[in-house]
Amino acid sequence: MGRRRSLNMTDLAREAGVSIATVSRALNGAPGVSEATRHRIRKLADDLSYAVSPHASRLARGSHGSVAVVIPGLTHWFYSTMVEGIVSVLHDAEVDVLLYLVKEEHQRHRFFEELPARRQVDAVVVVALPISDEEQRRLELMDVTVVMAGGTLGDHPHVRVDDVIAARQAVNHLVRARHERIGMINVRSPWELAYPAPRDRRLGFEGALRDAGLPVDPQLVVEVPWGAGGGAHAMNQILSLEQPPTAVFAFSDEIAAGTIRSLRRAGLRVPGNMSVIGVDDHPLADLMDLTTVHQPVGRQGTAAGQLVLDILEHRAVDTVHISLPTHLVIRSTTGPPDT
Amino acid sequence: MGRRRSLNMTDLAREAGVSIATVSRALNGAPGVSEATRHRIRKLADDLSYAVSPHASRLARGSHGSVAVVIPGLTHWFYSTMVEGIVSVLHDAEVDVLLYLVKEEHQRHRFFEELPARRQVDAVVVVALPISDEEQRRLELMDVTVVMAGGTLGDHPHVRVDDVIAARQAVNHLVRARHERIGMINVRSPWELAYPAPRDRRLGFEGALRDAGLPVDPQLVVEVPWGAGGGAHAMNQILSLEQPPTAVFAFSDEIAAGTIRSLRRAGLRVPGNMSVIGVDDHPLADLMDLTTVHQPVGRQGTAAGQLVLDILEHRAVDTVHISLPTHLVIRSTTGPPDT
Repeated sequence: MGRRRSLNMTDLAREAGVSIATVSRALNGAPGVSEATRHRIRKLADDLSYAVSPHASRLARGSHGSVAVVIPGLTHWFYSTMVEGIVSVLHDAEVDVLLYLVKEEHQRHRFFEELPARRQVDAVVVVALPISDEEQRRLELMDVTVVMAGGTLGDHPHVRVDDVIAARQAVNHLVRARHERIGMINVRSPWELAYPAPRDRRLGFEGALRDAGLPVDPQLVVEVPWGAGGGAHAMNQILSLEQPPTAVFAFSDEIAAGTIRSLRRAGLRVPGNMSVIGVDDHPLADLMDLTTVHQPVGRQGTAAGQLVLDILEHRAVDTVHISLPTHLVIRSTTGPPDT
Repeated sequence: MGRRRSLNMTDLAREAGVSIATVSRALNGAPGVSEATRHRIRKLADDLSYAVSPHASRLARGSHGSVAVVIPGLTHWFYSTMVEGIVSVLHDAEVDVLLYLVKEEHQRHRFFEELPARRQVDAVVVVALPISDEEQRRLELMDVTVVMAGGTLGDHPHVRVDDVIAARQAVNHLVRARHERIGMINVRSPWELAYPAPRDRRLGFEGALRDAGLPVDPQLVVEVPWGAGGGAHAMNQILSLEQPPTAVFAFSDEIAAGTIRSLRRAGLRVPGNMSVIGVDDHPLADLMDLTTVHQPVGRQGTAAGQLVLDILEHRAVDTVHISLPTHLVIRSTTGPPDT
């Protein structure tokens, strides 16, 4: 972080020909500044790569900065693996990480209400959390680098996988195994705001079916809460259909693992009676011999951490919108349907 | 944190009748202060519940403090669940959490070398990381509250489970199912320093066998690296013994899950040919119908977070050495041996 060069608020006030208080109000979105002045100061700040931060002078002096990592939960493998990747890279650059858990509504509220007022960080990394327009506006008022890991957030820098493609990889594998009646178990967002991943994976699912000339039957799409329990429940629902599918694309490996418990308890053979494919390549998938679509979660984390460092240190980057590839991992839960 | 009352270094210097520089050197273990003076100032600081912290005046003024959480990894369910518990409680008290990952040797080295010099935190929570005497000394030089979550650290406050008892609960269950030849799959520490859990669980294993009048055969104890792969490998080793056991106590549910993959691939029935029991009650255990000994990991985390708050805010606590109970969860991987 020692290589960072940035102006402080005093320099910016001098450049703009206004008081430091005016600069502060303009950058923080506080009242008492005309829109024209606010616009002029923000543009000047952008042009001069100014970042509002109490650490700015410390950074310029060569000591450590800190970055906030915002997560909706840690116990899920996806989040903990992502965070470990982000933290590893930032620590190796001697940047401290402040962890903000926004699992409950009050935590979410406090984070978005208070963090912009505190401004103790040089950047905020949001991990796969859907953000409302108002929340995005509050984040932007902080005038620090905002990076999304595992999703997108407006035009902000991000690292993610393409969930439409991931779903197509899964469904195409089932189509190649000659399945003609394919179901999907999707998840419902725990938030009012929708996650993009369930929407994108459903788009990919439907696109792959259409491309294969197969019908898209909404009856074969079941939505459940996150987690293995949801998967188990969804499979029971699917098995009670008059004409169940012969293969199921599960939103995640945890969902897939739940479906396999239900199939085992119903005395059905996998993949003979039902093929199952997930997404993630969760450690569980290897353990349960699950066919899945691998997404590089730790690498999304390290790439997001590196992106933050590159931006803070003004290094040239090819793109700030990074999409990492996914790939099919064939194990033993998929095969041709019994004839 | 606003309720915290603490002296600052100026007050302490006045009380001790020495300069602020002398107080600082005495508390930081820096040279230039006689042992007698150091001892006197430290004792005075203890008596007056002084905590060295750059945030001390902020805390007294009622704004937020911060706490460092030190973990050897995040991707493992045990650590991420523990950290989520700690962070939830601290966030609800408006305390910021700085996360320090000490997975690699250089990260560990930097943490213990640099954190004491920075002193940006009011407390350090160490999550189940074995600490050397020298590292413990460095932590103590920070003169902040140190709490161990998921283990013990000298006389410092801790929250943990009793691993000897957890192992006895597991092995007694196998003994009651009339197993007479019981193996154990234990883990090797990834560090030079040993974790206490593998040692304690082995003690519990051997104690339970002796109490049941069963022989303790070192041949039946296999040590492997952490993780499901290790469990799979260990079970293959056990199956190649001239006289394999009829039941196995696995260090963790992940190890147990690995053993079940090996048993399935070898075409053996669980529990008919081999009973398997783990420790943790990992989400995996429910999914795979694993019999296990439940340990409350999230609750260890919240209890550790609460302990930190109680100590920082000088609230009365019954004990600073908290041991939470474990209990047996019987699912479908244990039963009597085939006769």
